[in-house]
Amino acid sequence: MDGFTLTHKQPTRKDFIDTADFDQSEMLDIITTARTVRDFIKSGGYLNSMYHKNLAMIFEQKSTRTRVSFEVAMEQLGGHALNLAPGAIQLGKHETIEDTARVLARMCDMIMSRVDRHESIEALAKYATVPVINGMSDKCHPTQGVGDMITIFDHFPAGKQMNQVKVIFVGDATQVCNTLCDMTTKMGMNFVHYGPQNHKIDDAVLLAGQQNAQRYGGSANWSDDPECLKGADFIYTDVWYGLYDKETPKEVYMADFYPKYQVNDQMMAATGNPQCKFMHCLPASRNEEVTDSVLDGANSVAWDEAENRLTAQRGLVLYFGGMAEVTLDYIKQQKEGQNR
Amino acid sequence: MDGFTLTHKQPTRKDFIDTADFDQSEMLDIITTARTVRDFIKSGGYLNSMYHKNLAMIFEQKSTRTRVSFEVAMEQLGGHALNLAPGAIQLGKHETIEDTARVLARMCDMIMSRVDRHESIEALAKYATVPVINGMSDKCHPTQGVGDMITIFDHFPAGKQMNQVKVIFVGDATQVCNTLCDMTTKMGMNFVHYGPQNHKIDDAVLLAGQQNAQRYGGSANWSDDPECLKGADFIYTDVWYGLYDKETPKEVYMADFYPKYQVNDQMMAATGNPQCKFMHCLPASRNEEVTDSVLDGANSVAWDEAENRLTAQRGLVLYFGGMAEVTLDYIKQQKEGQNR
Amino acid sequence: MDGFTLTHKQPTRKDFIDTADFDQSEMLDIITTARTVRDFIKSGGYLNSMYHKNLAMIFEQKSTRTRVSFEVAMEQLGGHALNLAPGAIQLGKHETIEDTARVLARMCDMIMSRVDRHESIEALAKYATVPVINGMSDKCHPTQGVGDMITIFDHFPAGKQMNQVKVIFVGDATQVCNTLCDMTTKMGMNFVHYGPQNHKIDDAVLLAGQQNAQRYGGSANWSDDPECLKGADFIYTDVWYGLYDKETPKEVYMADFYPKYQVNDQMMAATGNPQCKFMHCLPASRNEEVTDSVLDGANSVAWDEAENRLTAQRGLVLYFGGMAEVTLDYIKQQKEGQNR
Repeated sequence: MDGFTLTHKQPTRKDFIDTADFDQSEMLDIITTARTVRDFIKSGGYLNSMYHKNLAMIFEQKSTRTRVSFEVAMEQLGGHALNLAPGAIQLGKHETIEDTARVLARMCDMIMSRVDRHESIEALAKYATVPVINGMSDKCHPTQGVGDMITIFDHFPAGKQMNQVKVIFVGDATQVCNTLCDMTTKMGMNFVHYGPQNHKIDDAVLLAGQQNAQRYGGSANWSDDPECLKGADFIYTDVWYGLYDKETPKEVYMADFYPKYQVNDQMMAATGNPQCKFMHCLPASRNEEVTDSVLDGANSVAWDEAENRLTAQRGLVLYFGGMAEVTLDYIKQQKEGQNR
Repeated sequence: MDGFTLTHKQPTRKDFIDTADFDQSEMLDIITTARTVRDFIKSGGYLNSMYHKNLAMIFEQKSTRTRVSFEVAMEQLGGHALNLAPGAIQLGKHETIEDTARVLARMCDMIMSRVDRHESIEALAKYATVPVINGMSDKCHPTQGVGDMITIFDHFPAGKQMNQVKVIFVGDATQVCNTLCDMTTKMGMNFVHYGPQNHKIDDAVLLAGQQNAQRYGGSANWSDDPECLKGADFIYTDVWYGLYDKETPKEVYMADFYPKYQVNDQMMAATGNPQCKFMHCLPASRNEEVTDSVLDGANSVAWDEAENRLTAQRGLVLYFGGMAEVTLDYIKQQKEGQNR
Repeated sequence: MDGFTLTHKQPTRKDFIDTADFDQSEMLDIITTARTVRDFIKSGGYLNSMYHKNLAMIFEQKSTRTRVSFEVAMEQLGGHALNLAPGAIQLGKHETIEDTARVLARMCDMIMSRVDRHESIEALAKYATVPVINGMSDKCHPTQGVGDMITIFDHFPAGKQMNQVKVIFVGDATQVCNTLCDMTTKMGMNFVHYGPQNHKIDDAVLLAGQQNAQRYGGSANWSDDPECLKGADFIYTDVWYGLYDKETPKEVYMADFYPKYQVNDQMMAATGNPQCKFMHCLPASRNEEVTDSVLDGANSVAWDEAENRLTAQRGLVLYFGGMAEVTLDYIKQQKEGQNR
């Protein structure tokens, strides 16, 4: 990867609904675009690839990271993102989702939505004539997955091959876990969901991860045995409860996960790898799923990971906006101009 | 109309409160500006006529189409729109409307507002020293009216003169109906409100339409006789209930309108005109005021109409921002440059 | 002050939390930047000093003036402001304030927040690696203070020295009163809080004002004797109740303040100065703390003051964004170019 060469000149699909819809080469295209653009902007470069382009963001749930990262990404690329906050558009209420998709596609250049049910993002994608990006559904969190893989690449274990890297997701098998399983195995890494049986990763998701492993190397497993932590390069966790679920009381979740699945200094030590990094999609419930000592510790890459939400969104809007190749060409020219 | 020549160099009024305040020549100026700018942007052109200009949008009611179309219009013209969502500013609550108008006019270049009561938009216009645009009141929906007339022009019946065109609004005499009556008769077309007597178009609005007809040709009528559908070029409808009225139960409205005033295949056939187009301001309550077969049918121009909200808003902010002529001149130069 | 020369090339502190943290020279730097930029933009100039820079605005309370002025300021300088409205981010609820600060600082270039408790803005400033601006806390309202001093300079009494100027804040000792005490005494002016003993300005704030007076000239006092009004150049007031306090009934406040502390024609006359200006941070409860005759009178500068919120915010984002000197240099060059 020289940072400027893409396998695909255009995306193979109009929409970015699930990382599972794309093969390794295309995910690498997106990641390459995202990282090269990040480095260019960090070095003081300006881009206007999305000049006068408008992204409609529809939120069925509150969001800080997804909203801010997409809005900043669009502005930094010369465009704009419209924030349709929860309640501003009620998908399927006064108007069918299909009609909302048709109308927004006539006014905006791209749609991103965080939805309650995965079928909603699929309906938006089907009826909108512009690209639709899934900003999280109950099934998966693909934009998070792109940012996470960028973070893993940024902190790649020195001297290792892809199939020697081990990534462990600890705790509840959330959408973030599902997408991480797909992304890591698609890169040929070794993935483990370490969590209690009654919060085990979905069989279909795990099977898809194992099919990835057959194609690209690596492995996909679930375990509730702490032995699985051995040799981990990345320990990842998410909250146990509370953001999207109002029914089950906190006590039930705590009984399922605490103390065994709390990421603390002992768990980090149990990896046997002093270089093992800690990841969290945030927000964190401090001293529940992760202790202050780990989240604020030297091996935590959680803040880099948060920043890479922005890195990922820039790559995604460029790629699905059909502007990735022209942008990378422009950056290459700028760099060559400087070196001359 | 060559698309570049305006009758008025500047608007005759500071504000756009009601289409009834303007004569035909000025409405044609706005429409010409809007259509020429649309075609230029669609052909890949970029404009910055509203560079660093800020539009304050105040919503007393939720809005998707009006909000998105104004926000995108401003961004595409190099400016910005601030979304003051319902609750963000409560007109006349903590502060008088007059004071809110005075303050916003000191910070922003233009104000657009969707208000509960028409007096509110009039007060904003009176006390703001910058242009004020009515984004819908209980009396009229003038920005919708501009987009609707653009849609009618885009789908103009081949070979007809203005005074041979017949536009029928079916159902409840909403604000959209009021403005359509004014716009169509101002262009010299023939307008009919086809609806039940207890939801008949306001006498004053109909009278104003008839006065337009005397000046410009055409006619304005109300009827509950399906005979009036004969020869229609455009059938237009709006929801029967529910968006702005919480008091009257759905059943009452349904009894008034259903099945007689539902736009379905039979009603479209009753026009005797296989080219008759279907229009709807949206959102639609599918299979109540309009059937899927009509809304999704080959003669439906409802999605073009939605896109023309954006077309209209660009024309309006340019025109009332005093930038219409300079923008059309610029586009003309660009086109002449290409042809040379 | 030539309008182009600053004492400090860079701010002495990363954040703008309280005017009390800065000395006179730095407050004058901010004011000079703000006024010179205002005059340049008013004369038709365009600036892009904040090109592709993003300001995150977090509101724990509703705001019209602060939100609109910061959003317009950023847009007019080529950047963008993200509106995180009340409820969008609940500081310290799902995530600690510290973590929110860390995350936003990784995505945005600057943070502005209106907070319920002053400790919240201090925590944001401590943990964000980017500049943080206090958009009002329960302790002070520093961005208002900058706009107010600009307004006082704009309407400076002809022929007077700083230490001959008298500014009286009438009524409840709000955050606006606290900051005005600091700003006026820091400029060497004479400040009086004229209000009832049970709403008297905080002793510590008054003491700090008196320390300013020792350093810069002028004076700081509290009085409930109408004699203190004599010789005032500026009479300033704020609402007595209702915006941020739900517990105490209106009647209690009215009994404390009315009629003695209402700013009306008699009070203005009691200054003995026909040139005495009236100021109000707005929104106003008309005919409670101020009569229509005064707020709408010839000596009211309340609307200029509202516009100077925008003037101040441009100066603040430039100064704390490290772009003040380069912007003033650019304006100077532009002006010299015109004069050649």
